[in-house]
Amino acid sequence: MFAGPEGRSNVNNNPDMTINGYQVALAEGRAEPLDWWHTCAARIEQREPEVKAWEALSVTPPELDADLAGKPLFGVPVGIKDIIETVDFPTGWGTGGYLQTPSSLVDASLVTLLQKQGALVMGKTVSTELAFFTPGKTRNPHDLSRTPGGSSSGSAAAVAAGMVPLAFGTQTAGSMIRPASYCGVFGFKPTFDTLSAAGVKSFAPSLDTLGWFARNIEDICTTFSVLTRAPRITALNDLAGVRVGVRSLPGTLPLEDDVVQALAAAQARLEKVGAEVVPLPLDARYETLVEHQKVVMAYEAAQTLASEYSRLSDRMSLKLVELIEEGKAIDYPRYREAMLVAANLRQALTAVFETQVDVILAASATGEAPEGIENTGDSIFCRSWTLLGVPCLNLPLSKGKTGMPVGVQLVADRWQDQRLLEIASTLMAREVAV
Amino acid sequence: MFAGPEGRSNVNNNPDMTINGYQVALAEGRAEPLDWWHTCAARIEQREPEVKAWEALSVTPPELDADLAGKPLFGVPVGIKDIIETVDFPTGWGTGGYLQTPSSLVDASLVTLLQKQGALVMGKTVSTELAFFTPGKTRNPHDLSRTPGGSSSGSAAAVAAGMVPLAFGTQTAGSMIRPASYCGVFGFKPTFDTLSAAGVKSFAPSLDTLGWFARNIEDICTTFSVLTRAPRITALNDLAGVRVGVRSLPGTLPLEDDVVQALAAAQARLEKVGAEVVPLPLDARYETLVEHQKVVMAYEAAQTLASEYSRLSDRMSLKLVELIEEGKAIDYPRYREAMLVAANLRQALTAVFETQVDVILAASATGEAPEGIENTGDSIFCRSWTLLGVPCLNLPLSKGKTGMPVGVQLVADRWQDQRLLEIASTLMAREVAV
Repeated sequence: MFAGPEGRSNVNNNPDMTINGYQVALAEGRAEPLDWWHTCAARIEQREPEVKAWEALSVTPPELDADLAGKPLFGVPVGIKDIIETVDFPTGWGTGGYLQTPSSLVDASLVTLLQKQGALVMGKTVSTELAFFTPGKTRNPHDLSRTPGGSSSGSAAAVAAGMVPLAFGTQTAGSMIRPASYCGVFGFKPTFDTLSAAGVKSFAPSLDTLGWFARNIEDICTTFSVLTRAPRITALNDLAGVRVGVRSLPGTLPLEDDVVQALAAAQARLEKVGAEVVPLPLDARYETLVEHQKVVMAYEAAQTLASEYSRLSDRMSLKLVELIEEGKAIDYPRYREAMLVAANLRQALTAVFETQVDVILAASATGEAPEGIENTGDSIFCRSWTLLGVPCLNLPLSKGKTGMPVGVQLVADRWQDQRLLEIASTLMAREVAV
Repeated sequence: MFAGPEGRSNVNNNPDMTINGYQVALAEGRAEPLDWWHTCAARIEQREPEVKAWEALSVTPPELDADLAGKPLFGVPVGIKDIIETVDFPTGWGTGGYLQTPSSLVDASLVTLLQKQGALVMGKTVSTELAFFTPGKTRNPHDLSRTPGGSSSGSAAAVAAGMVPLAFGTQTAGSMIRPASYCGVFGFKPTFDTLSAAGVKSFAPSLDTLGWFARNIEDICTTFSVLTRAPRITALNDLAGVRVGVRSLPGTLPLEDDVVQALAAAQARLEKVGAEVVPLPLDARYETLVEHQKVVMAYEAAQTLASEYSRLSDRMSLKLVELIEEGKAIDYPRYREAMLVAANLRQALTAVFETQVDVILAASATGEAPEGIENTGDSIFCRSWTLLGVPCLNLPLSKGKTGMPVGVQLVADRWQDQRLLEIASTLMAREVAV
């Protein structure tokens, strides 16, 4: 299937290799530009038969564009969720074949941005059907009997299994943070509007947000800076003066023990690095966000997928058909109400961030990845944040009672992505040393 | 080219026919379902050689779906801007051929929503290049030596020339309101996020907004209710108690006499119907919106069109290449600043609407449509409102010094579309009688 790794140096077999570290190794002649590709290809060959993270794969080493040498992602293999269109790979939109684009007219803008920085697209990763809840074939690399979460199933699993250092997904309800939590990787959903979704299949346009998975915080930060042209993010000495509010949304849902422990462990680590961690009360309006998110998602999906529904509903999953029909039954005043509540609470939350806390620590998911791959788990702890458009970062810091990963998320105000990533970088840099 | 109109009744040759009026005529047996299509086809045959509003046209009468009889848009011919993808027509994205989709995999959601309500897609209307500023072939129906405006050039011209009663476009800077003003038709850009843009070519995703043109306010309102499932909008008895603030954005730019007169005429008409019209002071922050809109548009376009630029820049217009390169030079802190200012002023403007005025009366364009078709005119009086995401309606109430149309726009707060359309309906209903 693949050529094996060339093994020129142990750079490539280092599971802690970072994107920046690889660039240094390339610059110093300790690695060749296709080394990481070969390492990933070998890892895919080994793990893919059981994890099933990919819909389409590059089976021969790519041709390198020498003009891109020195670019920050030069030679970095990436995975692209299969609802993101590409010229060089077919796009199946997670439909298992009922919608299939052999080759797009142009690439999604994300794909071009990555390639122009030297990244190598390894292939297309499994998505649930049109990024909704009907799963694909992917299994959780930590326990093949469990779901990796969804809808960005293949991207999360591929990163967790070491098949690629970086993979891209989208979140409309909880499709980045939940699989990141289940698969034990970092997952970052930036502020809504940060990256253009051109070439990404829409589901609910006011919610859909591109994000990415990596195995270390440095690669999350590097990717952010490279794609947005933001200044490079570095760790601080400590988190003295940083205020962290502990609050999941919804706040009324009882937390499983695994989640309580994951939050407590995160709190302890934050405090060790100097942060002040306090409970954050939010008023009852925030508890309505989950329902409003569901209204927005269903109403917009019914519009957005009108043509697919009209032509292909007999091939769609029942779950998706039901959502679209639910959305068609929602009238404008109800949708408008949801959008107004969201706008008001975005503003209210800005005031909370300006006066009370720098970031919020919240549950990422209800617990460990559920058994079975027939469903992708519950996105309830992500829906409110997605509707608020705020940046969310899953930190893979804990294990549950059966040893599966249980993440927590750090949340910041809209456009405070750099601050969020700076705080997380500091936590992770110092946490290793503690 | 076309079969002529069947002339079954004079219903079809009535230039004041409305969508609702046609449905009544159908229900009462005074018209047949294809009558309006034939009327439009004849009108297109007559006017298209000189106006050049279309990229692709249906040349045979469509097959009617009997199941759709009784739907609110049954038998209504519509035009679709050629950056909106369709299965039944090629999509050229305004590129004159360098990007061409012979048939999309699925229709844009808008197209399906229209067809499910019985509308008949007459064809694809001319867009500027990828909806930016490089014009297509279309001429202003009121004076063929002038531009119809852009980027929704063909849709505005087709409606103005009586070729279709309803046509769809998009606005990222001023691409709905400006051509509506130049062509003397109603043009409506609803609140951002009202309609899904799935299948519409993105340019700047946080700005791009679908809208539509019609020759009467009733059709604007009917289309809004049908597409969003909002309650039907009806005229009030008068505008007593309605407060209208007069304020163009930017407010520092001197207005041409034609625009001063158009605003004065609109004010007089509003006052005759009982509205209270007052100058609306807005602070200096609002004057920065034009520059921030340009930053957002360029930064997002550089991302969004990354693949097109990478593959096809040698075939793109210089104008578009320059914009993308300008956008590539904008860094994240500058983009973030623009997005934060926009978010803050959206909220500040809500307070203005809650406490001071119901709607704002503003200039639509700098004056009459410019001579020549080499450029599509200046969108400066639309950019700020587009960035604010507010609903805007062009009212074609005045003529300039050479007799060309000069519109004004009514603007309401986000999600106050129904109120805006109710006020405009009242003005137009009563204005005829004055």
